[in-house]
Amino acid sequence: MHTFNPPIRTLMGPGPSEVHEKVYQALAKPTIGHLDPEFLRLMNEIQVMLRQVFQTKNQLTIPVSGTGSAGMETLFVNFIEPGDKAVVCVNGVFGTRMADVASRCGADVVEVKAEWGTAINPSDIDAALSQHPDAKLLAIVHAETSTGVWQPMDEVADLAKKHDVMLLLDAVTSLAGVPVELDKWGVDGCYSGTQKCLSCPPGLAPISVSERGLQLIQNRKTKPQSWYLDLSMVANYWTDGNRAYHHTAPINMNYALHEALRLVLEEGLETRFKRHRENSEYLWQELESLGLERFVDASIALPQLNVVKVPKGVDEAAIRARLLNEFGIEIGAGLGPMAGKIWRIGLMGESSHTTIIDRLIFALKQIL
Amino acid sequence: MHTFNPPIRTLMGPGPSEVHEKVYQALAKPTIGHLDPEFLRLMNEIQVMLRQVFQTKNQLTIPVSGTGSAGMETLFVNFIEPGDKAVVCVNGVFGTRMADVASRCGADVVEVKAEWGTAINPSDIDAALSQHPDAKLLAIVHAETSTGVWQPMDEVADLAKKHDVMLLLDAVTSLAGVPVELDKWGVDGCYSGTQKCLSCPPGLAPISVSERGLQLIQNRKTKPQSWYLDLSMVANYWTDGNRAYHHTAPINMNYALHEALRLVLEEGLETRFKRHRENSEYLWQELESLGLERFVDASIALPQLNVVKVPKGVDEAAIRARLLNEFGIEIGAGLGPMAGKIWRIGLMGESSHTTIIDRLIFALKQIL
Repeated sequence: MHTFNPPIRTLMGPGPSEVHEKVYQALAKPTIGHLDPEFLRLMNEIQVMLRQVFQTKNQLTIPVSGTGSAGMETLFVNFIEPGDKAVVCVNGVFGTRMADVASRCGADVVEVKAEWGTAINPSDIDAALSQHPDAKLLAIVHAETSTGVWQPMDEVADLAKKHDVMLLLDAVTSLAGVPVELDKWGVDGCYSGTQKCLSCPPGLAPISVSERGLQLIQNRKTKPQSWYLDLSMVANYWTDGNRAYHHTAPINMNYALHEALRLVLEEGLETRFKRHRENSEYLWQELESLGLERFVDASIALPQLNVVKVPKGVDEAAIRARLLNEFGIEIGAGLGPMAGKIWRIGLMGESSHTTIIDRLIFALKQIL
Repeated sequence: MHTFNPPIRTLMGPGPSEVHEKVYQALAKPTIGHLDPEFLRLMNEIQVMLRQVFQTKNQLTIPVSGTGSAGMETLFVNFIEPGDKAVVCVNGVFGTRMADVASRCGADVVEVKAEWGTAINPSDIDAALSQHPDAKLLAIVHAETSTGVWQPMDEVADLAKKHDVMLLLDAVTSLAGVPVELDKWGVDGCYSGTQKCLSCPPGLAPISVSERGLQLIQNRKTKPQSWYLDLSMVANYWTDGNRAYHHTAPINMNYALHEALRLVLEEGLETRFKRHRENSEYLWQELESLGLERFVDASIALPQLNVVKVPKGVDEAAIRARLLNEFGIEIGAGLGPMAGKIWRIGLMGESSHTTIIDRLIFALKQIL
C-alpha cells in the first residue's frame, strides 16, 4: 500500500470547503494529552471563540467529537425523553433527518412541512404549536443544505417564545456564513459543523445550549440514550471545574478548529458575511450570463450555497464528472428527490473568493 | 487570540501515544470531498488494511467517525434491542462503561465481575451464561486501559461458542500492540481507537462486525436508537455499491489513519508485537531497579500499558506534575477507585522505543 496523495481539487460543493493553509498547519502540530493543562487552555479558548461566532453568552458552547450529524443527535438525545412531543420543520434532507433522529429518541414527532426549495411558513408553525400545546420543542433548519434555502428566523423565534417551547436550530451550513444570533433569537440548542463556513476539515460539531436547555438536561428523569453524547458528562470535561475525563477528545481536530475560529474572528463576522454576500452576487451574475437559473427565490437564497436548476436535456452527472476530472472542481449534486434536478455550488469560508468563482465559470464555459 | 503552539511532550500515558511524522504529514494534506472517487479509493484501502490488523475477513470493517467510545456505542446500539439480555464482564472502567452503554440501549445487563487488576475468570463467565441461557451476547474488554490487565481470550472464545452467544470485544488498547485475532476467536463485534497502538491522533474508532453480527443487524425489529451510528446506513456509504451519502466522514483523520495503518503493516504485526514485549521488559527492568512494583501480575500484564503501584507515602500527583512540567513527559493517573494508587505508563506504537523509556527513567531518577 502506498501513502495517499489527494488529487488537486477546488472544493465548491456543499462542504467540505477549502481550508486555509494555517489550519492545515495547526492540524499537523504534535498531539498532546487530552488532560494536559495546555490542552485544557486550548479548550477554553475554543469555547470563548465559539460563543462569539454563535453570538451567545451560553456557557455550554463546545465542539462535540463527531461530524455535524453527531451535533444534531447530541441535542435530540439530551433534550428529548421518551414520549415528549416535538414539532419538527421539514423542507429538505436535514429536516427529514431531524424528524428521524427525534423519533429514534422516542419523541412524538409532529412535522411542519414546506415544499423543498421554499422556506417554512411561520403561520404553519403557529398552527402546529396551537394544535399541540403540549409540544416541548420546535426544531428548524436555518440553512437547508439540500436545497439552499435560508430560513428567515425572526418570526420563528417569536413563535417559540409565544408558545413557550424550546427552540432547536440546525446551523450546520449557516454558521460563520450568514448571521447566527442565538441570544437574540432565544435559541435553546444549536449545532453546526466545522467543514462548511468555518472552513476547517470535517470531524467536529460545535454546539451551544442555553441556560434553560441546560436545566432541562439536568432535570431529566431518564439517562440520555447515548453515553458518548451525554452532555451532562461531556460538559464536566469541557467546562471549568473538575475536568473529569469522559472520552478522549480528537486533539488535532481541536487544534484545527481553534485556528479556523481565530481566522474567522480576525476577519470579523460582519466582513465575512459581506464577503459571502458579494461573492454570491458575482457568481450569479456570471451563472445567469451563461443562461443558468436559480432553484431558490433570491429573497431566501443562501449566499454560501448557491443552488442552480439543471438545464433541460443536460446530463448533470456528466457535467459534474467533467468538472472534477478535467478541472479538479467539485460541486454538489441534488440529494433524494432533488437528484438530477439541481447543482449545489458552495462558496463557504475559504471557498468564497472571486478567483475560485472564476475557475468554475471558466470551466463551465468550456463544458456547457 | 493567538495561534496555539503545543508544548514539547513525550506521550507515555494511556493514549494518545506518540505519532509518526508521516502521519502528521498525511493529516495535513489538502481536504477533498467525502464522495470524491479518490476518497472512496482511500476508504477501500483503509478497510483492506484494517482487516489485516484485526486479523479478519469481516466485510464490515471500517472506522467509525468518533473516538473509541463511539466505537463501543456503535456496537451496542446496533446489536442490542430493548429487552435483550447481555452478559458484560466488568473489571475496570471500560467494562463498567460497557454495562452503562448496554443498559442505555435497553439491555437487561448481567455483570460478571472480577477485582480491578485481575482478569475475568472464565468459570464465572461459564456460570453466568449457564444461568442465563437467554443471553444474546457476551461483552468483554481485551486490554483494560484502567488497570493494564490483558484478558486471555482462548477460553472466553470457547465459552461464547459453547453457549452460542454473540461475542463483543473491546480492543481499544490492544489492537496493533498485542495479537487481536477476530476470526480465530469468532468475535462478532470489535471496536478500537486510533490513538493507542495504531499511533494516530484520536478521532476515529475502527470496528469490525462478523457476517453473523451483520445478519443480526439486518434482521432487527426496531431501528437502532442512534442515527449517527446506525451501521445499516453507515455500511452503505463505506462498502462497495451505491456509496450512499450518510454523514460527512472526517476526511483528514482518515488520511492519517491510512498512513498509520500503512506503517503498522510495513513493520509487520509480529515484529510490532515483539517490539512492544521487549520494550516493556526493558521498562520493568529499569523500574524495578528503582524499587517500583507491578500492579498487575506479570502473566496477564499488557506490554503496551504498564501499571505501577504508587509507593507508600508518595504524592503521586506531584510526581506526575514534575514529570510534565520539568521533563515534558506525560504518564497516566489512576481512574475512579484506582486514583492515587497507580501510575499508567503507555508504551504504545511510536511510544514503544528505548530512547523514550530512557527519558522517563532519567526523569524518575531525578524526582523519586
